[in-house]
Amino acid sequence: MSRPTPLSGFPEWLPAGRVVEQHVLATLQRTFELHGFAGIETRAVEPLDQLLRKGETSKEVYVLRRLQEETPWTGAADAVDAPRSPDDRQLGLHFDLTVPFARYVLENAGHLAFPFKRYQMQKVWRGERPQDGRFREFVQADIDVVGAGDLPYHYEVEIPLVIAEALGALADVGMPPVRILVNNRKVAEGFYRGLGLDDVDGVLRSIDKLDKVGPEAVADLLVAEAGATRDQAAACLELASISGTDAGVVDEVRTLAARHGVVSDLLETGLAELGALVTAAAERAPGVVVADLKIARGLDYYTGSVYETLMVGHEQLGSVASGGRYDTLASDGANTYPGVGLSIGVSRLVSRLLGADLVRASRPVPSAVVVAVAGEDTRAVSDRVAATLRSRGIPVEVAPTAAKFGKQIRYADRRGVPFVWFPGTPASTGADGTPVEATADQVKDIRSGVQAEADAATWEPPAEDRWPRVVAAG
Amino acid sequence: MSRPTPLSGFPEWLPAGRVVEQHVLATLQRTFELHGFAGIETRAVEPLDQLLRKGETSKEVYVLRRLQEETPWTGAADAVDAPRSPDDRQLGLHFDLTVPFARYVLENAGHLAFPFKRYQMQKVWRGERPQDGRFREFVQADIDVVGAGDLPYHYEVEIPLVIAEALGALADVGMPPVRILVNNRKVAEGFYRGLGLDDVDGVLRSIDKLDKVGPEAVADLLVAEAGATRDQAAACLELASISGTDAGVVDEVRTLAARHGVVSDLLETGLAELGALVTAAAERAPGVVVADLKIARGLDYYTGSVYETLMVGHEQLGSVASGGRYDTLASDGANTYPGVGLSIGVSRLVSRLLGADLVRASRPVPSAVVVAVAGEDTRAVSDRVAATLRSRGIPVEVAPTAAKFGKQIRYADRRGVPFVWFPGTPASTGADGTPVEATADQVKDIRSGVQAEADAATWEPPAEDRWPRVVAAG
Repeated sequence: MSRPTPLSGFPEWLPAGRVVEQHVLATLQRTFELHGFAGIETRAVEPLDQLLRKGETSKEVYVLRRLQEETPWTGAADAVDAPRSPDDRQLGLHFDLTVPFARYVLENAGHLAFPFKRYQMQKVWRGERPQDGRFREFVQADIDVVGAGDLPYHYEVEIPLVIAEALGALADVGMPPVRILVNNRKVAEGFYRGLGLDDVDGVLRSIDKLDKVGPEAVADLLVAEAGATRDQAAACLELASISGTDAGVVDEVRTLAARHGVVSDLLETGLAELGALVTAAAERAPGVVVADLKIARGLDYYTGSVYETLMVGHEQLGSVASGGRYDTLASDGANTYPGVGLSIGVSRLVSRLLGADLVRASRPVPSAVVVAVAGEDTRAVSDRVAATLRSRGIPVEVAPTAAKFGKQIRYADRRGVPFVWFPGTPASTGADGTPVEATADQVKDIRSGVQAEADAATWEPPAEDRWPRVVAAG
Repeated sequence: MSRPTPLSGFPEWLPAGRVVEQHVLATLQRTFELHGFAGIETRAVEPLDQLLRKGETSKEVYVLRRLQEETPWTGAADAVDAPRSPDDRQLGLHFDLTVPFARYVLENAGHLAFPFKRYQMQKVWRGERPQDGRFREFVQADIDVVGAGDLPYHYEVEIPLVIAEALGALADVGMPPVRILVNNRKVAEGFYRGLGLDDVDGVLRSIDKLDKVGPEAVADLLVAEAGATRDQAAACLELASISGTDAGVVDEVRTLAARHGVVSDLLETGLAELGALVTAAAERAPGVVVADLKIARGLDYYTGSVYETLMVGHEQLGSVASGGRYDTLASDGANTYPGVGLSIGVSRLVSRLLGADLVRASRPVPSAVVVAVAGEDTRAVSDRVAATLRSRGIPVEVAPTAAKFGKQIRYADRRGVPFVWFPGTPASTGADGTPVEATADQVKDIRSGVQAEADAATWEPPAEDRWPRVVAAG
């Protein structure tokens, strides 16, 4: 086997990078659990027909086949349509955690208490062309609340505030602040319809391109593809230009609507919701949540709040957490399950934290201590010291060989392990018959060179050295 | 969408089951890290040619294809052989964590310090027929130590002892004890060759069937397929019948070898290693490690110690942790990397712990407290109580609606949440102008019904109620 090379779009981290990723995941998990979200994990595969229910995503799906399957595929159409035995339905890898969650809710509805709050942190796969921050295999961390039949609006306020708290909890390790941009589909739809524009999806698709192509090109698109007049297009762009962190935004929209003669109950409902969100956010996460009326989100199943999240100073990376409210997350005919959720792009986040040298691990291995070995015949002595330290929760490894102590210290140093432990020797009799006194264990801080007597039953490393820490690299 | 049904072989847990699985994974992770193993995660896919290097496993591999890929597959042979552009090499899902780890070591050798100790806990996929304890998608937790050029024997002692400690750490939640059965390929090979049997792999394959078909059928196999005489077959079966937890096993083998005139340096080397392992294990994990000379392990790349692990009382489940020593985990021509490792079948373990009702979670949600909501206009009051409790590390959710308190208590009860918090009210003026006194917050233990005044800034739940616990279900 020659030396393998990485696969484009399938990121992997060295051990020090994985320490950072684990810290990010553990921090998110803790915040989610403090807010009462239960963890679930779904299988990586779903029946292909379920994955393709939203036509737009079909290009991203990886389809599975058992290598020794009897009937090899003959083409895409066949692969999708051909019915198989129930055990051998065509399967694909999930491309997000929302589709599997919707299926899980339907499958287990009888065993879940609603509203059901869950978090889910797993890999997803998309066969897109890899780019900076865009991968074929990546980790998402999702939270959703789903109701049976109905779901109160206040969860649309809670969800982005939980995400703000979760990402904010990473600030002390060097994660830049975020801005969660929020909008409300009811505001957009009410405004557009009030203007006389009925192709709401068409307008949203055009507005969604604002950051990419600029306002003039979007105006042309609105006229050409959404049936707008120049005046209607200008009004849509005016709406999209409104943003702010307090309820003043709501007044701005009302003023604009009045100026264009827009009267809409839907708009008023949306504005009341958006106002409640920014007001609560101003108290609970000051400066983080920004009402931004240009946020459209491509997917057409959102029906209320929509969210995108930018890292300050890294806006070009794109959104690191997106989502929204959907009135029909799932439905089994008898029941409809509305939901609201946000999905953090963990791999995108971690790859930037590592790639831009924002965050690093204090060491790549768990061990705080390497116990030296004086000779292979006394390795059991070193093993016993290690066991004593571990029994008190101190991560320890024993030196691989009974090399010269200088070499054993270099072994620890290469790994970033801060302490080397030298077991003492019991009392004995020298070659000339004189007694040799016992010596005590010693521990050396190899960064400072300070060495001192120590007892494995009581010694403690400094708290900041016990486990690898994740710290701002700046 | 009609109600979906589970996919055979792709296990998923309800939230309470996931609490158990997370506890198992966290316990294993902590033990591995206390022993200095660094966590890594590899991508889920490997180039198909790498996955198929060991011919025996080809039937298990799931192959991936992008749905919109230009050239659809026409068959298995084509799929394997057809070269693609480097970005579009044929990919399959990994069927274990050893093949990806070997590739990771080669790819990153320049950035790793050897001996490199790593743990890895991920899903793997095999297209086998699902059975009890045998899945198509399942979680493995692996530890391995890999050296550059050489790897001292003592790691073959350390690895099963770490696994014994990791699984032993689950005893207090109801995990049954395990027996780690160990053997040494050098003992088997030295003995067989000393008897005059040169088809060592053939003998091992036959002996591997002992538990399934019994000694008489194995004797027939040895004669028919491994070229043994009846006497040689009998000697192989005698060796396979030896087992024990101390160095007496070594003497038994020596006696047997002498009786059959077997003289072999390889046998002696293997016996010295096996003796060292059982001696160390007798001190460090009394009763757990059993030398069992019939353990063969199917895979032919093991070259020293081999391990299998049975759960006491659940032997029919098969091995829950298997592995061994391989002199060539990976090689890039210039360097060879020997390794030793063990892989825990986490899904098999967890599905038995749950399915046999051995272990359960104290509740399915993280929340220790539901904060009641008196009216939607005072939801912000409840939100502030929740934030105060969370800031002190207490998991809390706020009631979904301002229903009657009885209904809010039933909401908590349905989830197994032990406490309901009732925010107090500020001082006010009654309708008749008389002052109404402020009331204090109260918290109710809904199991006992006891309700008392409490302050969110200081109240603590009993330690055992703070987070969901995993407990023996017995």
